[in-house]
Amino acid sequence: MTKAHTALAPLFGQPSSSLLGTTSKIDMQNAALLNGIASHVHDYDDTHLATIIHPTGPVASALLAYLEFQGRPLGGDELLVALVAGIEASCKLGLAVWPQHYDIGWHITSTTGAIGAAVGVGKLMHLSESQMAHAIGIAAVHVIGLREMFGSDTKSFHPGQAAASGIVAALLAQQGYTSSEQALEAKRGWANVVAGGGAGASRLDSILGSLGETWEIESNAFKPFPCGIVCHPAIDAAIQCHKELVQRGVDLNQIERVSLRVHPLVVELTSKKYPRDGLEGKFSVFHGCAVGLLYGKAGPAQYADEVVTAPEVIALRDKVEIAASDSIETDEAHLHVQLRDERVERHVVHALGSLEVPMTDEQLKQKFLDQVSLVLGHSATLRASEAAWSLGDAENILPYMTRFNSASAQGLNWTEALELRTRYSSGA
Amino acid sequence: MTKAHTALAPLFGQPSSSLLGTTSKIDMQNAALLNGIASHVHDYDDTHLATIIHPTGPVASALLAYLEFQGRPLGGDELLVALVAGIEASCKLGLAVWPQHYDIGWHITSTTGAIGAAVGVGKLMHLSESQMAHAIGIAAVHVIGLREMFGSDTKSFHPGQAAASGIVAALLAQQGYTSSEQALEAKRGWANVVAGGGAGASRLDSILGSLGETWEIESNAFKPFPCGIVCHPAIDAAIQCHKELVQRGVDLNQIERVSLRVHPLVVELTSKKYPRDGLEGKFSVFHGCAVGLLYGKAGPAQYADEVVTAPEVIALRDKVEIAASDSIETDEAHLHVQLRDERVERHVVHALGSLEVPMTDEQLKQKFLDQVSLVLGHSATLRASEAAWSLGDAENILPYMTRFNSASAQGLNWTEALELRTRYSSGA
Repeated sequence: MTKAHTALAPLFGQPSSSLLGTTSKIDMQNAALLNGIASHVHDYDDTHLATIIHPTGPVASALLAYLEFQGRPLGGDELLVALVAGIEASCKLGLAVWPQHYDIGWHITSTTGAIGAAVGVGKLMHLSESQMAHAIGIAAVHVIGLREMFGSDTKSFHPGQAAASGIVAALLAQQGYTSSEQALEAKRGWANVVAGGGAGASRLDSILGSLGETWEIESNAFKPFPCGIVCHPAIDAAIQCHKELVQRGVDLNQIERVSLRVHPLVVELTSKKYPRDGLEGKFSVFHGCAVGLLYGKAGPAQYADEVVTAPEVIALRDKVEIAASDSIETDEAHLHVQLRDERVERHVVHALGSLEVPMTDEQLKQKFLDQVSLVLGHSATLRASEAAWSLGDAENILPYMTRFNSASAQGLNWTEALELRTRYSSGA
Repeated sequence: MTKAHTALAPLFGQPSSSLLGTTSKIDMQNAALLNGIASHVHDYDDTHLATIIHPTGPVASALLAYLEFQGRPLGGDELLVALVAGIEASCKLGLAVWPQHYDIGWHITSTTGAIGAAVGVGKLMHLSESQMAHAIGIAAVHVIGLREMFGSDTKSFHPGQAAASGIVAALLAQQGYTSSEQALEAKRGWANVVAGGGAGASRLDSILGSLGETWEIESNAFKPFPCGIVCHPAIDAAIQCHKELVQRGVDLNQIERVSLRVHPLVVELTSKKYPRDGLEGKFSVFHGCAVGLLYGKAGPAQYADEVVTAPEVIALRDKVEIAASDSIETDEAHLHVQLRDERVERHVVHALGSLEVPMTDEQLKQKFLDQVSLVLGHSATLRASEAAWSLGDAENILPYMTRFNSASAQGLNWTEALELRTRYSSGA
């Protein structure tokens, strides 16, 4: 984030739109870009599990930047409609080209996100049907994001650029700039091209035909932990064991051995035994397990650099052993914790955050508080949380943007907020 | 152009970089975008014939916008090195993924152009080797442009966005923003992904290995006529017939029938018999042939709306008959012109602008004069032409930018220049 902000500052135009959580404003395109980057730095997104699209980052980053630029009073219900429209567009298109598109190597969050963002912003603009078709077409030529970038700063750049591209596409279409009207479904249109030139569009008709009938947003899940989703069953089990041990008054320092049985993907993707910083910690099931057992929590604070390098965390991490089994599902884990005099174990069948065991409203609220209070402070965050839950009833959401970005009494600008954030984050 | 300028005006930042041919300045990203759009509106580009990449538009648009932002004195030789580096990067990458990449449906000018633009700007920035690798990686995630957009405004948007993306990538890399260091060649890197997920990268090593040994810029050709390149042999033949008829003092109104034999692609791509405006005229070999015969010229002025709809042009266009033959090459054409009392014919073996019959320096100069004098006026254009031919010797090219953009005595701003341009152009 710091590097991106510094790099792109010469491009910033009319200060219409907030860098979220600060009093700083820049032009809507770059605000959407930087807020979109911020949405993904912690790997703590919502996830449409059928496509592993993280749909809200690109769409919401574009909408929030545009609504401040537009400046007209905007009901919360209208914002929600635009958000849902953008998310549905992204996820339906993702389903149409899944799994070839992802297998080839595209980062599906951003490749579908540019179109979703254009649809969302187009809704706020009240584009005509024809303008919306062109907005979708213009957005469709921005095929942003490669999986090869995972593990580098550019991964987070993807949803940011998708948000910015969506705004540009909608602005152009609003002025009558034309694209193809068969941008998605043509022989050489988006669906076939991004599925590798095969018959990517073959399912497009039936899937887009379900728009407004089956709702993808209802299959959109929330991550309880800011790390790769395959780690979640193990962390869930570790936190449950922590709670039981604390309840029984057991000294956590007595843990002698931790045995974990998981799906093979966990080993393939997250077996960094010796993570050196927060970012590497996100790819270490050992770390997730250790902080879950020690602290009963695996939030952003438990992925800070100083926690990943803390002696007590390293000591416990070294005691974690992992075994993969094909008979275990991706959202399942077995955890055995051996203490000096006793043992505790857990079998998580469906991890917290799966469709079977979704996060509760209370857990979602806590996730919001854990993150936002780092910037807004506790009481402003509580008010922001209440406002968010009743967003659909708000007559005009513009005042919220000002109120919460000025962070009540704190009123941090970008530089000050950044200092605060970096204390809690290893994100770039 | 007008629509894009109006649409994106709210995004414009610090006025560092010129909208070429005007005194107006905007931020470098949007200047690169709009100048890149302008470079392609007339379909009058240079063409790397082996890949049909139009390499200069994205790279030069990025370089010119960035060098004015950077503001330091810059030798013409340094600019040329950066331009050549960007063009070589674009064309080598294009060769590596050709033809699958184009067949799938990507607009190869812009998909390779973003990377070429990043390389060029990176050269001007004096990026380190590592920074340049990251700039290439960040640019590689901007896969911009679908062939499906041909015939709409968005076709020209592609090279513009590629130029802008290249600048963003280089700026980010300069600040240490990271991408993958195997962005191009990895299993799920750029080459494999954009070639449809197959073995796109298999030729990457050998083709990139020829960097600095075989020069793609030496196979870069120039279009003598602002229309699809498949029309060029027929237009070339028509202009040759015009010259002969004029030399013999024959009245062109006596033309009774025009018979054309061409490669089948000409019929497939450019057989608009009744074009209604300049843009449709570009896809009409009938129109190209008619203006070539009538005026001995097929420049931008002959593709203006009022020429496409002029009665004498329509009358002659109606007399043109076309036949396709598999035995004719793409750069070949046979033309027979039947007049009342006599006939003239031409067999063009290699069209003007092919590698076998490249445009001469004198013809290139005339192409420059024909276009630029519409905005700068004749005498300033002559000076600009001389400056361009000796660019490599210039100690500092910044003053040229100011001098020629202020258009000597004319000094048109964007709005005034636009009015002038639209008189000669049907480009959007």
